[in-house]
Amino acid sequence: MKKVLIIPDSFKGTMSSAEVCNIMADAIKKYYPKAQILKIPVADGGEGSVDTFLKAVGGEKKFVTVKGPYFEDMEAFYGVIDGGKTAVIEMAASSGLPLVCDNKDPSKTTTYGAGQLMLHAAQNGVQNIIMGLGGSATNDGGTGTAAAVGIKFYDKNGVEFIPVGGTLKNIEKIDTSAFNPIFENIKITTMCDIDNPLCGINGAAHIFGPQKGADPNMVEELDAGLKHLSDIAKRDIGIDGFNLPGGGAAGGMGYGMYVFLNSQLQMGIETVLDTVKFDKLLKGADYVFSGEGKIDTQSIRGKVVIGVAKRAKKANVPLIAVVGDIGDGVEPVYDIGVSAIFSINRVAVEYKDAKLRAKSDLSLTMENLLRFIKKIKG
Amino acid sequence: MKKVLIIPDSFKGTMSSAEVCNIMADAIKKYYPKAQILKIPVADGGEGSVDTFLKAVGGEKKFVTVKGPYFEDMEAFYGVIDGGKTAVIEMAASSGLPLVCDNKDPSKTTTYGAGQLMLHAAQNGVQNIIMGLGGSATNDGGTGTAAAVGIKFYDKNGVEFIPVGGTLKNIEKIDTSAFNPIFENIKITTMCDIDNPLCGINGAAHIFGPQKGADPNMVEELDAGLKHLSDIAKRDIGIDGFNLPGGGAAGGMGYGMYVFLNSQLQMGIETVLDTVKFDKLLKGADYVFSGEGKIDTQSIRGKVVIGVAKRAKKANVPLIAVVGDIGDGVEPVYDIGVSAIFSINRVAVEYKDAKLRAKSDLSLTMENLLRFIKKIKG
Repeated sequence: MKKVLIIPDSFKGTMSSAEVCNIMADAIKKYYPKAQILKIPVADGGEGSVDTFLKAVGGEKKFVTVKGPYFEDMEAFYGVIDGGKTAVIEMAASSGLPLVCDNKDPSKTTTYGAGQLMLHAAQNGVQNIIMGLGGSATNDGGTGTAAAVGIKFYDKNGVEFIPVGGTLKNIEKIDTSAFNPIFENIKITTMCDIDNPLCGINGAAHIFGPQKGADPNMVEELDAGLKHLSDIAKRDIGIDGFNLPGGGAAGGMGYGMYVFLNSQLQMGIETVLDTVKFDKLLKGADYVFSGEGKIDTQSIRGKVVIGVAKRAKKANVPLIAVVGDIGDGVEPVYDIGVSAIFSINRVAVEYKDAKLRAKSDLSLTMENLLRFIKKIKG
Repeated sequence: MKKVLIIPDSFKGTMSSAEVCNIMADAIKKYYPKAQILKIPVADGGEGSVDTFLKAVGGEKKFVTVKGPYFEDMEAFYGVIDGGKTAVIEMAASSGLPLVCDNKDPSKTTTYGAGQLMLHAAQNGVQNIIMGLGGSATNDGGTGTAAAVGIKFYDKNGVEFIPVGGTLKNIEKIDTSAFNPIFENIKITTMCDIDNPLCGINGAAHIFGPQKGADPNMVEELDAGLKHLSDIAKRDIGIDGFNLPGGGAAGGMGYGMYVFLNSQLQMGIETVLDTVKFDKLLKGADYVFSGEGKIDTQSIRGKVVIGVAKRAKKANVPLIAVVGDIGDGVEPVYDIGVSAIFSINRVAVEYKDAKLRAKSDLSLTMENLLRFIKKIKG
């Protein structure tokens, strides 16, 4: 074993992907002390994603004063990687739920700061921007971000304003003519791991509104506002994002990134794999280790292990998944490229007990596996 | 993978060792259809041991009319293996708890039938007798068995009698001069997996008496009777079995086999390994698969997996343990010869739920493992 890649998801509620990386790496070092080990903790776009990217590939963290969820001035940040070519932003840094503490109100909060972070990065010369969604306090359909980069929203009196969730219904006209041309040569990718559309019972307001503080009446108001935004944007910009899978992510920020910023929505793992140039890293690798809290039939839709497996298979590198639970009917993942799946469950106990011993169980499971590989493979 | 040995313990309460063998073999066949697979379900000496031996190595089942627990005539059986050279007896066949149904009384039951089975086998020319203990309805210290092979017990009036639990105290003299000489050239091995001594709070009466129907008074009476037996035997035969580990097995049958029949007590797994000539079978084997319900620090004392591991290590054949639970602090087993341990727990659920899916989990765990071996080893 000369070269090993470690690229796990977090074990949700138990271990971060960085922790999983470290535990896996320690076990590998114990049995193959000379192996080159590359650790790639996977960011999902939510809170902590910037740090995760910086850990994975190295880079610089930039701190910028922008508008917070209630238009207050605050210090947010983004990451610059890839020798200054790529900025990684997590919208939660300026518009995240933890920033509003108990003062949750998705009818009044904005994503304006996320747009300011993009602008700052663009002005610093990046060629790529990765925007991570997740953990937002907002429901503004990305209009705040759009406003920060030059898109203008007008009410029925022709007065320009920056919409928030509760005032989306007042938008009468959208004007993109002042959209900052600095973005014309920047590739913008939005990380989004969910499929929810902008509106309706599976949309942003209905599914995520309540956890942001919306009562049932406000949910209806927010949902109607997003629908109205979509109608006006379709008319004025000519882009229909109403049914976009993931449009409902982060209070409609998924929609906004697509319609206003011309960004594609991409699974977090694909973004990470592209960003770290995973296909290159695979060259000469003996094994890839991945993992997640539970591998199941949903994993096939595009969670971390499967995303990694597809590329490992192409490169003919065995991908070993070390996971919490193994769901029923998971066998198709073998064909996709997972060589083997090992559960860290060493004793028959419920999850509430299993999570307390997860780190130790992961470590022991990895050590057992490496000992075995060494025994039969050398 | 050209040759594989499968030699698991039962997963207690979940799967018999024969069932485990079959599930493991099916998985191996799926990935290595041309492999030679030898299945050796492990008998522990208790009920079903004869059938298990016959399944493992082939042989003949002999049916014989002997005395049952209450001296009633009944049909019992033993197995003849190894081309007629070895008899395998389970004492439960003639003196087992299931035979007395609700009529449990360890002060009145006898192991006489077990002695008759031995005698029958001896008269049929076997050179070895394996006696399996476990599941007995008796507490006679093996005196019934001894009586059946010619040893005489006398009371204070010089009257010969066959002691049972409640009359052990009446033994005044033991005479071995009529011990059947047919046994002189027969090697007798007693399978015994427990350490309990004949008497005292960890002895036969205190630990196993209640489940055989003894109330607290009877337990004291039985314990005193065994102590008395031991005193007389020490004086008249010159053998002290009072502290023999395992002497308390099967109502003192462990003691009786040692003192009256000159038999060594041996862990079941060692007996099985010797009987199936495991060291020979190991030649040319690529892997040994073993397993048990839980591998833990107690396993090191001599349970199946460890017994197998010791021999596999000597032969330098990787031993893969597939188990239910993996206990804490089990790491020393690796040094003893276990190459790897895989738990069949695929989801974090309690044992009561885990046992319901154990067969499927074992099958899927084996398949995953074989797929992995095939992938990395070819």
